[in-house]
Amino acid sequence: MTARFVAKRSSGGAESVFCRAARRERVERTPVWFMRQAGRVLPEYRAVRERFSLVEICRRPDLCAEVTLQPLRRMPLDAAVLFSDIVLPLIAIGVDVEIVDGVGPVVRDAVRDAAGVRRLRAVEPNEDLPYLTETIRLLARELHPQRAVLGFAGAPFTLASYLIEGRASRHFLRTKQMLYANPALWHELMSRLTSITVATLRAQVRAGADAVQLFDSWVGALGPADYAEFVQPHVRRIFAELAPEGVPMVHFGVHTAGLLDLMKDDGATIIGLDWHLLLDEAWERIGHDLGVQGNLDPAALFGPPNALERRAADVLARAANRPGHIFNLGHGLHPETPLANVMHLVDFVHNESTRLRSAAATAAFASP
Amino acid sequence: MTARFVAKRSSGGAESVFCRAARRERVERTPVWFMRQAGRVLPEYRAVRERFSLVEICRRPDLCAEVTLQPLRRMPLDAAVLFSDIVLPLIAIGVDVEIVDGVGPVVRDAVRDAAGVRRLRAVEPNEDLPYLTETIRLLARELHPQRAVLGFAGAPFTLASYLIEGRASRHFLRTKQMLYANPALWHELMSRLTSITVATLRAQVRAGADAVQLFDSWVGALGPADYAEFVQPHVRRIFAELAPEGVPMVHFGVHTAGLLDLMKDDGATIIGLDWHLLLDEAWERIGHDLGVQGNLDPAALFGPPNALERRAADVLARAANRPGHIFNLGHGLHPETPLANVMHLVDFVHNESTRLRSAAATAAFASP
Repeated sequence: MTARFVAKRSSGGAESVFCRAARRERVERTPVWFMRQAGRVLPEYRAVRERFSLVEICRRPDLCAEVTLQPLRRMPLDAAVLFSDIVLPLIAIGVDVEIVDGVGPVVRDAVRDAAGVRRLRAVEPNEDLPYLTETIRLLARELHPQRAVLGFAGAPFTLASYLIEGRASRHFLRTKQMLYANPALWHELMSRLTSITVATLRAQVRAGADAVQLFDSWVGALGPADYAEFVQPHVRRIFAELAPEGVPMVHFGVHTAGLLDLMKDDGATIIGLDWHLLLDEAWERIGHDLGVQGNLDPAALFGPPNALERRAADVLARAANRPGHIFNLGHGLHPETPLANVMHLVDFVHNESTRLRSAAATAAFASP
Repeated sequence: MTARFVAKRSSGGAESVFCRAARRERVERTPVWFMRQAGRVLPEYRAVRERFSLVEICRRPDLCAEVTLQPLRRMPLDAAVLFSDIVLPLIAIGVDVEIVDGVGPVVRDAVRDAAGVRRLRAVEPNEDLPYLTETIRLLARELHPQRAVLGFAGAPFTLASYLIEGRASRHFLRTKQMLYANPALWHELMSRLTSITVATLRAQVRAGADAVQLFDSWVGALGPADYAEFVQPHVRRIFAELAPEGVPMVHFGVHTAGLLDLMKDDGATIIGLDWHLLLDEAWERIGHDLGVQGNLDPAALFGPPNALERRAADVLARAANRPGHIFNLGHGLHPETPLANVMHLVDFVHNESTRLRSAAATAAFASP
């Protein structure tokens, strides 16, 4: 176990399958959870959303915990990921963001100058996000010690892109324009967002989260040189400041195949992989002293069960019983995904990974 | 020179800097062209578009040749890429596609069943696309022998995705659903589109195109296993059937970092690289017996000149005077790109690559 893997075993879910796998210990089966597992794929979630907005749910710990737990009541998922949105901390410090169905966050006054950047004050989680930590406490009480509670926050690049573009962007031209034309302002913006991210994640861990995931969904828009210069220092600060908390830390982005050689050294203990590369090759490049999470194409859940099983089995075969694999999709569940396929996949991953382990044990026993 | 690089020197532009570089011969400077160089970035193009639709332009060889040549009248670009659209051959065989400004191709009757696939008949270029070959002839007359004429066509995956989804898609769920649920129908669709692509490219070469580019813009939506199973056989057929024509063949897609290990063996003589990976590392993986094209982030053209020059110089430094590099962007020019920056970039690439070569020659001379 290398230095960067010193994880204390103090969290309430530290002995769950998820946490043991996340620490790269041997486990009896591969743990599985899905990004966006709590959400529109579930009819019971859609029923809640008829009465409450996404932000209203997040601000009511009882309701937020219930929504977070909904998928675990249906399926034996190994972790509950806090139901939230990456812009929640921004809303909490007064940024005028609306979360529009089918569009995502829409920022009324896009941040494009020094005055806009200066308005981004620090987050005081106890004051600004009391509901977030309270929800984590409720989840910990419900799930520990068998299952893990996973906290999360948006990464500064992805947050910055929403603030600068005003909404989800295809080409990130204004964002890149700022980092090319005004690197000092860019770094000031990133620095403030980094502080917000650290405070948000640290509060979740101290409230009982067993692990955290940094969502840098759009960082793959950058080439490696721009990542190294404009993002990496901030991501490294996040993981360095969180490392003393002693929980596994996942770094996830989409289209990061060209960035993995950089990301692997940024301090995360687990790299979240999308589906655009083969898990075994990516893990080889990242190094086996880190864990990996992923990496089934979320579209596979739209196929027939045999096609879905074949692809999920391929992911598990490439993980090859190696300690440190957490099964997930390569990105979030699409809202229109057939729920029966999602439930089937959880069982398949558990059964198939158990079978692979027992086959490997038999082979080891049989060999001279 | 390996077998897959046998390029005859019969085309009229075969001794242009572009073609010599494309055959991985030593050249005095790095050739440069841009995807979408003819188009909305030019005011003279926008003036033409006030009177003619995109398809009208394509169908009038004089006008189409003029639009294709517009950027070369402004800048010393090394190749003219036929002004066209990847759906043009589909329109020519009766598919009801409209090219909508700011949206791209919109297909009225999306292809989702066997009847839809069967309606895709073969293309007879002389009958169906006489204007395409006539435009190439006009271009060859104007540009040869100094500059190269580059033909192009859409790749079957990208065409299939438009036909199935009905328009540009973010997640390609219907496309993937077909390949998961009905692989036989998928392969039949791909097979028909492959025939269309081959016929379109072959006709362009025989009319005088010095090289061709296969645009598989969206193929990066697939993971490597799906590429290997559902796309690769068809792409290989394209390059195998075109190889006897003896011209350099570029294979381009976006977000292909995870697919390069497969694409390198598909028969293209040059791989087009987007900006999400470092050119030297990608070339190493592809192998130096193939050429590479790319790979500046098109967004770099929105930055100040010093930031732009720094990034273009980095691309050239990574190409390291190695024979077989064609400078390009990692994807098409954005319509809003400042034209002055585009013109500056062409000069910069020519000057800087000349300087790098002379510096290398001096160093070689000085070394014992």
